[in-house]
Amino acid sequence: MTISMYAASVPVFKQMLSSLSDVLAKAEAHATEKKIDANALLQARLFPDMFALTRQVLIAADFAKGACARLAGVEVPKYDDTEQTFAELQARIAKTLAFIDTLDAAQIDGSEERDISTSAGPNSKNFKGLTYLLHYALPQFFFHVTTAYALLRHNGVEIGKRDFMGKVKTAE
Amino acid sequence: MTISMYAASVPVFKQMLSSLSDVLAKAEAHATEKKIDANALLQARLFPDMFALTRQVLIAADFAKGACARLAGVEVPKYDDTEQTFAELQARIAKTLAFIDTLDAAQIDGSEERDISTSAGPNSKNFKGLTYLLHYALPQFFFHVTTAYALLRHNGVEIGKRDFMGKVKTAE
Repeated sequence: MTISMYAASVPVFKQMLSSLSDVLAKAEAHATEKKIDANALLQARLFPDMFALTRQVLIAADFAKGACARLAGVEVPKYDDTEQTFAELQARIAKTLAFIDTLDAAQIDGSEERDISTSAGPNSKNFKGLTYLLHYALPQFFFHVTTAYALLRHNGVEIGKRDFMGKVKTAE
Repeated sequence: MTISMYAASVPVFKQMLSSLSDVLAKAEAHATEKKIDANALLQARLFPDMFALTRQVLIAADFAKGACARLAGVEVPKYDDTEQTFAELQARIAKTLAFIDTLDAAQIDGSEERDISTSAGPNSKNFKGLTYLLHYALPQFFFHVTTAYALLRHNGVEIGKRDFMGKVKTAE
């Protein structure tokens, strides 16, 4: 197997979105078990001007969706950011996973030199596909997935690195 | 340019280790300016059973060093984990950057199927090179880089996403 733009994108996002889903399931179970208001976790922040858990999850999912769509050259699906509960966040992750699963290697492979434009607020950024994936979208994605985890750990949810990493295929 | 095992490893680790160095420099300046004991940041944790900042930095640097060495098929350099100060952490990052800079694309490219073994405590894990890089080493690396950042943000250091991301090459 040779590394490719597809290999470095869709399967990586799938691994980490699946583990994020598992982490959120543990967080919800923790809230239920400890009789904690779910919003105490969903609205938790590591610092007042950082995003709350809900937004961290939405942004992570959006980097997965946006990166895979842009590399494949298809329109980025627009989802409304209305999710407020654990169930809604899970549905958003599931919807994102289902979307990126519709993209196949033939669409994404060879996108190294594809022109990619993203807009964040008033600014737009222009990249080539390779730089966009490896130096922008993946670091951003991992930032938000990790921050969601860190935020839950900080609030006492009993999760560990194994939950963060998800299922990694080791060799026989 | 075609994506390769080198393109997905050394340049990515370099970007993020350089930004981690900048983040730590801002943290040290913050401590000096606010007359905070540097150890209040260096020994800070997000939760009692999580690693402190110093250890987060060392582990991040070690994933960069270990991943690049193993993919290149060279011995992983052993560094003693004695770093306690910001200056020592900066030196560790600089040493790590200098090491991975000694590896060239010819050594790392084509390592997709290379057998990689890592040991974490009593357990060893066996991977193929591609899975090891994309599904294990990079997620672990980003985990610790992000946790170091999150920990400093949580402690009031004035850093932003731009500091985390470092220098990303956009297209003209």
